[in-house]
Amino acid sequence: MAKILTLTLNPALDLTVQLPLLSLGQVNRSDEMHTHAAGKGVNVAQVLADLGHQLTVSGFLGEDNLQAFETLFAKRGFVDAFVRVPGETRTNIKVAEHDGRITDINGPGPVVSAQAQQALLERLAQIAPGHDAVVVAGSLPRGVSARWLRELIERLKAQGLKVALDTSGEALREALNAGPWLIKPNTEELADALGCAVTSPVAEAEAATRLHAQGIEHVVVSHGADGVNWFSVGSALHATPPKVSVASTVGAGDSLLAGMLHGLLSTDTPEQTLRTATAIAALAVTQIGFGIQDAAQLAPLEQGVRVCPLTEQ
Amino acid sequence: MAKILTLTLNPALDLTVQLPLLSLGQVNRSDEMHTHAAGKGVNVAQVLADLGHQLTVSGFLGEDNLQAFETLFAKRGFVDAFVRVPGETRTNIKVAEHDGRITDINGPGPVVSAQAQQALLERLAQIAPGHDAVVVAGSLPRGVSARWLRELIERLKAQGLKVALDTSGEALREALNAGPWLIKPNTEELADALGCAVTSPVAEAEAATRLHAQGIEHVVVSHGADGVNWFSVGSALHATPPKVSVASTVGAGDSLLAGMLHGLLSTDTPEQTLRTATAIAALAVTQIGFGIQDAAQLAPLEQGVRVCPLTEQ
Repeated sequence: MAKILTLTLNPALDLTVQLPLLSLGQVNRSDEMHTHAAGKGVNVAQVLADLGHQLTVSGFLGEDNLQAFETLFAKRGFVDAFVRVPGETRTNIKVAEHDGRITDINGPGPVVSAQAQQALLERLAQIAPGHDAVVVAGSLPRGVSARWLRELIERLKAQGLKVALDTSGEALREALNAGPWLIKPNTEELADALGCAVTSPVAEAEAATRLHAQGIEHVVVSHGADGVNWFSVGSALHATPPKVSVASTVGAGDSLLAGMLHGLLSTDTPEQTLRTATAIAALAVTQIGFGIQDAAQLAPLEQGVRVCPLTEQ
Repeated sequence: MAKILTLTLNPALDLTVQLPLLSLGQVNRSDEMHTHAAGKGVNVAQVLADLGHQLTVSGFLGEDNLQAFETLFAKRGFVDAFVRVPGETRTNIKVAEHDGRITDINGPGPVVSAQAQQALLERLAQIAPGHDAVVVAGSLPRGVSARWLRELIERLKAQGLKVALDTSGEALREALNAGPWLIKPNTEELADALGCAVTSPVAEAEAATRLHAQGIEHVVVSHGADGVNWFSVGSALHATPPKVSVASTVGAGDSLLAGMLHGLLSTDTPEQTLRTATAIAALAVTQIGFGIQDAAQLAPLEQGVRVCPLTEQ
């Protein structure tokens, strides 16, 4: 069992709404409406907890709608190290109509002050040591710059911590300069961060080599249903997931990241690490939510994962 | 200052969302998103508190999203006598696009068990005595029958309490049999409750006479911008509000009800009671929200209200 800290700088309350048909300009009645605490780092923490790890969760939480988060953290036994900020954590509304159409309405979230950012750095200086890895996942809230994210990662690294990063756009671009231990972009995010198209495994391998030279040990590139490429120094593996019936891809990337950490922080071989991580992501895809309710569900999926060196594809 | 108990059997978290344009099937970003604790009884309580009264609030609250309610009650100094029920209080989403189009998506809310209904009756038996009036406002949650509402009102009446009722449909129809002290339907609600069209002041007066015979002392019929008709035994008044610029009609009916109680529980004359209540409702209409931030705002609106006996219209 590892001790892992996940940072969610811009968490979200996910509000899922089901109704027959959404009529604009009308009063619509929803059959089902559920709120749950979310955000990439919170999701990764949940999957890691399912895998038996010990979690600390941190980042910024709006103090006006804490309840769903605090309830989840208490229920999952997470150490809550979130810095509270004035206002409401953003709500991301997902409206699902009976015909399968999904409309998302994402809230802006609070503006995080310089003072709150400083408070988080100070809290992390105290609590981060002793963790086996730190996951920094998701977008940046209003008020937080990519430059600050880079500094955060540099500080964590300076404390000797392994930092796994899952973000995109300018935040990823800038944070790569800090040389995190692991990144998990998809192909678009990788291309965007590097400022060039990455359209083949060869181009990906070249990009990974450059990233390794920046001190990034693990470059995990997700290709959705086509699988995962994992480049570490001296090793490049590809995993193809089993064919599964897709219920929802929500949390699949977070599940993959959790699975990679699970293997990397254990004595698993690289092949086994990637196999299990790919199976965990595949399991997420079969569910409306994500997570591992029963570890027995994983074995058949793991058997269906094909892992091979990238050159043999 | 009066001591007033408001019951909100089916409260709601109002989630207002502003965005330029809502595109179905897409990911939309909202400029502004705010949650606030609402429901007719909660709204009436807020206006009564603005008017200087002492409030107890009760009804059913989902225990999974209490924070906005508990924060409001603490901030306003309300005595919180809500019975907690499993699940989430419904969320009512109001999406406002820049062109003024409003799309509502109303959640279903929790199913309230027989046990919780019994718990509320028992709590009210303890806490209701000593209040000058009880307001029962809004719709019924899933699991609660109109028959139960009638029993609730009968029990409150048996305790010697004045019950003001603001509901509609079957709930209003059935609850009229309990003979509440005051009702505040609009014309459609009144017609629906009585099972016949009420299309003229004369028809309204006849309906009111029948309701008086059932023990309902005050029949306050709201006509929106056209004003209010108030029938009590031996008196029938009409008020025409001043012309105001309409920002939102949210909370206008609740403001009218609060204003009527304010006057009826004081030494105000009927004419003054209706004048102030109409001004409070007009003030609500000029705001995106409602409430009386500054009592000085009321005086010019009161001057603009025209009150006359109904026969002189």
